[in-house]
Amino acid sequence: MERHHFEEELQGLKNRLLTMGALVEERVHQAVRALIDRQLEEAEQVIRSDQDVNTLQIEIDDRCLKLLALQQPIATDLRLITAAMKINADLERIGDQAVNVAENVIKLLPQAPLKPLIDIPRMAELAEKMTRDALDAFVRKDPELARNVLQRDDEVDNLKDQVFRELLTYMMADPGTIQRALALILISRNLERIADHATNIAEDVIFLVEAKDVRHHHQEEQPK
Amino acid sequence: MERHHFEEELQGLKNRLLTMGALVEERVHQAVRALIDRQLEEAEQVIRSDQDVNTLQIEIDDRCLKLLALQQPIATDLRLITAAMKINADLERIGDQAVNVAENVIKLLPQAPLKPLIDIPRMAELAEKMTRDALDAFVRKDPELARNVLQRDDEVDNLKDQVFRELLTYMMADPGTIQRALALILISRNLERIADHATNIAEDVIFLVEAKDVRHHHQEEQPK
Repeated sequence: MERHHFEEELQGLKNRLLTMGALVEERVHQAVRALIDRQLEEAEQVIRSDQDVNTLQIEIDDRCLKLLALQQPIATDLRLITAAMKINADLERIGDQAVNVAENVIKLLPQAPLKPLIDIPRMAELAEKMTRDALDAFVRKDPELARNVLQRDDEVDNLKDQVFRELLTYMMADPGTIQRALALILISRNLERIADHATNIAEDVIFLVEAKDVRHHHQEEQPK
Repeated sequence: MERHHFEEELQGLKNRLLTMGALVEERVHQAVRALIDRQLEEAEQVIRSDQDVNTLQIEIDDRCLKLLALQQPIATDLRLITAAMKINADLERIGDQAVNVAENVIKLLPQAPLKPLIDIPRMAELAEKMTRDALDAFVRKDPELARNVLQRDDEVDNLKDQVFRELLTYMMADPGTIQRALALILISRNLERIADHATNIAEDVIFLVEAKDVRHHHQEEQPK
């Protein structure tokens, strides 16, 4: 495979990853919108359409393996392709988390709303933006943007703790709220995990660009 | 690199993955033992020793990249090394989950025990065995054992649902139990995620041996 063709293949791979990113981001958005707008049909659609994400994951993985086998890349190209495989896996798991949010929404919707939702939509917004920026950082090889994504993870963790404390108060005051509060706690954990996956992607980008392993160094805290 | 040397390097890689597997399995075991025996010190040690897991993950990743770059493997060897990279990432996340269990244990221990624990130790035992067997399946290239691991994931999911229902009953009956019940629910979710990671490893093994992508086919259910 000549260099020009290889560059084209790499560009194709990046484009497919961006498509995958847009797809899972949309699923997360839809799952949380289903919660806010109380749309059962919307939540069910997130679950049904998970197969699209899975099919795309397999296609991207296959592209990576073919590029590794045919081009036998070294140095930066090698790291780019192995990073793409890891990023692909993280994106697929973001899709899984969107499904988990949707499943919790389906459990919640038959019951009256517990409270106006503020922190959970904010968490979703942050996690979606982190995912988008981490992928942009990959495509543009931009370690500064990747570092910026890492920093935002703390904000998501703080919101998760805030959601937990607030819902705990509801549960203690009125056991009739327990089931709904639990579903909301689990949704906030799903969103936190999405931010963790975006963080993983950002770390892969920094490693790719700077050949420096930042995993396990940017913070002492572990994801819950 | 000659073939003989390459084989040695592959064997070395497998050995390091087995070491990594044994390490994270021990962490999970220790975190759950800290819960059962109510040993704060033990839980704290799980958190402190997470750095060992992270260091080993980086070393294994580095071995994989070097093997890809120097040997430029194709076909089965290529798939073996990319599978090793994925398995390594799953093992590291199992280590993260052990830390999360330990953190929840630390929150629980100052309070009186809520109930005798039966399902959670059982979940831990299953998840640990799944991890061990998935890694054995990798080293022995044994797709039957890998399939067997996939089947056991349902049992863990059922236990997780059972834990949830039981603890919900406690919380509804007595709000004084809510905080402890929540910590136990989160621990059961951590253990379920460990079983999910073992499932990911088993799927990688089947793909490796049979070059058939079983991801997203063995069950319709998504991990929670």
